[in-house]
Amino acid sequence: MLEATEAGQTLSEAAFARQTPGLRVALINAQYDLSTADFPVIVVLAGDDRLGCNATLNTLHEWMDARYLEAFALRPPSDEELERPRLWRFWRTLPGRGQLGIYFGGWSQQVVADRARRKIGERQFARRLAHGALFERTLVADGALVLKFWLHVSKREHKRRLKRAGKRDRAIDDRDWAIYEHYDRGMPLAERMLRETSTGGPAWHILESTDARFRDVFVARTILEGITTRLAERKPRRRSRARRGPAGTGERPVLAGVDLSFTLPRKRYKTQLARLQTTLARLTREAALASRTSVLVFEGWDAAGKGGVIRRLTNAIDARDYRVVAIAAPTPAEAAHHYLWRFWRHLPRAGTVLIFDRSWYGRVLVERVEGFARTDEWCRAYDEINDFEQQLVEHGILVRKFWLHLDQATQLERFRAREETPYKKYKITEEDYRNRERWQDYEAAVDEMVTRTHTKDAPWTLVPSNDKRVARVEVLRTVCKGLKQAARTS
Amino acid sequence: MLEATEAGQTLSEAAFARQTPGLRVALINAQYDLSTADFPVIVVLAGDDRLGCNATLNTLHEWMDARYLEAFALRPPSDEELERPRLWRFWRTLPGRGQLGIYFGGWSQQVVADRARRKIGERQFARRLAHGALFERTLVADGALVLKFWLHVSKREHKRRLKRAGKRDRAIDDRDWAIYEHYDRGMPLAERMLRETSTGGPAWHILESTDARFRDVFVARTILEGITTRLAERKPRRRSRARRGPAGTGERPVLAGVDLSFTLPRKRYKTQLARLQTTLARLTREAALASRTSVLVFEGWDAAGKGGVIRRLTNAIDARDYRVVAIAAPTPAEAAHHYLWRFWRHLPRAGTVLIFDRSWYGRVLVERVEGFARTDEWCRAYDEINDFEQQLVEHGILVRKFWLHLDQATQLERFRAREETPYKKYKITEEDYRNRERWQDYEAAVDEMVTRTHTKDAPWTLVPSNDKRVARVEVLRTVCKGLKQAARTS
Repeated sequence: MLEATEAGQTLSEAAFARQTPGLRVALINAQYDLSTADFPVIVVLAGDDRLGCNATLNTLHEWMDARYLEAFALRPPSDEELERPRLWRFWRTLPGRGQLGIYFGGWSQQVVADRARRKIGERQFARRLAHGALFERTLVADGALVLKFWLHVSKREHKRRLKRAGKRDRAIDDRDWAIYEHYDRGMPLAERMLRETSTGGPAWHILESTDARFRDVFVARTILEGITTRLAERKPRRRSRARRGPAGTGERPVLAGVDLSFTLPRKRYKTQLARLQTTLARLTREAALASRTSVLVFEGWDAAGKGGVIRRLTNAIDARDYRVVAIAAPTPAEAAHHYLWRFWRHLPRAGTVLIFDRSWYGRVLVERVEGFARTDEWCRAYDEINDFEQQLVEHGILVRKFWLHLDQATQLERFRAREETPYKKYKITEEDYRNRERWQDYEAAVDEMVTRTHTKDAPWTLVPSNDKRVARVEVLRTVCKGLKQAARTS
Repeated sequence: MLEATEAGQTLSEAAFARQTPGLRVALINAQYDLSTADFPVIVVLAGDDRLGCNATLNTLHEWMDARYLEAFALRPPSDEELERPRLWRFWRTLPGRGQLGIYFGGWSQQVVADRARRKIGERQFARRLAHGALFERTLVADGALVLKFWLHVSKREHKRRLKRAGKRDRAIDDRDWAIYEHYDRGMPLAERMLRETSTGGPAWHILESTDARFRDVFVARTILEGITTRLAERKPRRRSRARRGPAGTGERPVLAGVDLSFTLPRKRYKTQLARLQTTLARLTREAALASRTSVLVFEGWDAAGKGGVIRRLTNAIDARDYRVVAIAAPTPAEAAHHYLWRFWRHLPRAGTVLIFDRSWYGRVLVERVEGFARTDEWCRAYDEINDFEQQLVEHGILVRKFWLHLDQATQLERFRAREETPYKKYKITEEDYRNRERWQDYEAAVDEMVTRTHTKDAPWTLVPSNDKRVARVEVLRTVCKGLKQAARTS
C-alpha cells in the first residue's frame, strides 16, 4: 500500500509558482466561509516523514490565516493526561463547529510507533486501533470534516537523508534515526493502521512526500477541496421526532420489573446510613490515596430524589476527593462540539469520585423523547456511549450508573409537596408537569437505554425510590461494593 | 486578630430552623439573578478548620442550586500546573461573568501552610503574598465579587477534637493533626496573610467556626448579601474615550528614537538568516529538552511584517516545540473574563516557544485608542501586565517583546502593494486606512506602553522594520541571545 505511492511524483518550480497564489487566496476565502459553518474541520498530519510533516505544517501556517486555525503538536503525555483515558488529550482540544484544528501526528501515528518499538503488545494495538477508528467515526457522524494525511517516503530516501545529515542537515535528529531503524517492522503496522481506520470512517490520503512542492500543494489543495465541497452540500438539518429507533429493541419491559414496594423504617435507616457512610468515607479516602477514580452516573424521574442521594454520598467524602457535575442545557461552546465533548472535559484527575447529576444519557432520554436529537443521532449514541464507558473501564475507572425509579402517583405527591416548601418550589415548573404526559415515551426510552448500555463493567442499578430511604441505602451500598471490588482488583 | 474571634458564637437549633428556609429561597433567587449579571462571584473558603470548610461546602451544595455553582477543591498540583506560574491553576478555572465559583482553600491557605511547615522561606512567602494580593485586586477591579472566609477554631477546640477522634470521629485525619502541630507558628503567619491580603483588595470575613449552625448561616448569609447588594448597585458601564491616562508619562518620545534608515542587502541577509536559523534550531531543541519555556510577544504597526518575522522563527523550530497564538477579537467565553484570562490559558507546557501574534498589550494599544477599554481599565493594565510578566519570569520563563516599527510612508507603500497581491489582499481593509488617521494617538500609546512595561527581565526591542530583512535578522538575533542567556542562568 505504501510502496505503491513511491512513484516519484514531483511538482516543478514553475508549476508551483503558477498554482500557489490562487491556492492561497482560495484557502483564505474558504477559512472565512468556514467560520460561520456548522461543522468543524480536523486535519491529521501524520506519516513516517517527520520532517515533511514539519515542513507542511509550516507551509499551512504561511498560506492560511493563522487566526483561524489551531495546530496541536502533542508532546509526551503529561500526568494530567496519563490520569485519563488515552483519547482525552484529543477530546480536550477538539475544534468547535466553524473552527479548524491541525493535529500533528494524531493518535494513530503514536499507536504505530508504540507497536513498532514493542512498547505495546498485539492486543493493546488492536484495541487502540478500534477505539481510534470509532472516535473518528463518531466525529464524522456528528458532522466533522476529518482529513487525514499520511506522508510517506521510501526506505531508500530515508537512508539518503540520514547519510547526508552527518554533513550539513541541521534538522535531522534521533527521532528520524529511530523511524529508519524500525522501518521494516513499522511499515506493515502503518499499513494495517491505515486500512483499519479507513473503512467506515474518514479515509486516509496517502502520499509520497519526497518532493516538498508536490506534497505541500497536494495537502493544501485537498484541504481546500474538502472544505469547499462540504460547504456546497450544506443543507439545513432535519429534525426528526421519531422516538423509536429503527432497530427497535427494548421489548423487555425493564422498568416494570422494579419492585417499588420496599420501605425502610426511620430508625433502621439511620443506623444503616451511618454505617454505610463510615465505610464510604474510608473507601473513598483509600481510593484517593491509591489514585483510583470512580464515575457515578445519576439519572431518574423528576422528583425521584437524585439530589438527596447525591448529598448522602458527598457528606461522607472529603471535599478534595469528589466533584459533582450537574448537567444543564449546554453552553454555546458545548453546543459547538459533539455531545460527548463536555463529559470528556469533565473527567477528573486520578483519585476523584466524579458524580454526574444527569449525564450523557440525556442523548437517549430527553433529547430523544423531545426530539432535540435526530433519530440517527440518538440511535448511534448507544455505541458511542458504550465505547466511551469502555475506555473509562479500561483505564481502571470504576463506573456505576443509577436509574432512580418511582411510580407516577408518588411523583405527583412529591410535586405537590415541593410546591408547598418555599425553598423547593423553584424545582417545580410547568415543564415538569408536561414531562409527565410523556411518561410512556420516557419509559420506552429508559428500557431501551438500560438494555443497550448495561454492561458487566459499567452496570445500571435500577433503584426503587418510592421510599427515599430505600433509595439512599441502596445507592450507598452499591457504591461501597463497587469500591471494594475495585480495591481488590487493582 | 484570630483570637479575637474566639467569642463562643453559636446559633440555637430553633433560630437555625427559623432562618434557613428563607435563606435558601433567597440564595436560589440570587443565583438566578446572578446568571444574567455582568460580574462573576468568587468565594474563597479557607481556614485552620479543615473539617469546618468541608462541612460548609457541603451545606452550600445543599442550599444552593448546584447547577449554578462550581466548587474547586484543589489537589496537589499536577505536572501541567507545576510547569506554569503558581497562579495558573486558579486562572484556568476562574468563573465567567454571571457564574459562581467556590475555591476550597484558595491560594492563600497553601501559602500559610507552606511557610508554617518551612517548605518556603520568608522571601518567597512575601512574594507569593504580593502576587496573590494583586491577583485579587485585579479580579475585583475587573468587576468580580470576591468573598473570602477564614474559618477559625481555637487551639483548645482543635485539641478537644483530636482527643475525641481516637474514639469515634471518622473524619479526623493526619491533615488535622498537622494543623494542630504547627498551630503556634501557623496562626501568626495566617494573621499576616489575612492583613496583607485585605488592604486595597477584598476583605476577609474571619469567623469562629466551632458552632456549625452559626458558621454555615454566617457564610451563606454573607454570600447572599454580597450578591444582592452588588446586583442592586449595578449600573451601566460608562465608556470613557479619554486616551491619555491621568498619570501621563510617556513624555519621552521612545519611538522617535528608532533609526529606520538601516538596510540589509539581499545576499548578506541570506547568509545571516541561515546562520541564525541554524543557531535557533539548536537552541530551541536544547531548551525543549531542558523544559525551558519562552514567551515571545509581537506587536507593531499594520503591515510592519509581523507574520513574516514569525515565520522566519517557526521555520527553524520543530513543530512540537513551538506554538503560535494569533490574537483576534475575544470569543464570548473570553469576553466573559478578565482580559488576561485568555493569555493565562494559553501558557504552554514546559519547553515550548510560545509566540503571540498580538498580545495582552492590545489593552493599552487598540483598546485604549479606540475606547474599547475604560480609562481606569487601561490605566491599571500596566501594573497587571508587569505583574503577569514578572510571574512568568520568576517561573523561569524567558520573556521577550518586540515592537515592529516603520514610518507612515513605508506603511502606505505596503498597503498598496498588498492590494495588488491576490493572496495578501484580504489583509487590507478600510479599517487599516482608518487606523492610519490615529497614528499619533497610537504613537503616544506605544511610547507609554514601552516606558511603563520595559523591564530588565521582560524587555522590549524596538525593531526597525522599514527594511523587512533588517527586522527579521534583528528579531532572530535577539531571540537567540535571550535563549543563550537563559541556558546559562538556568
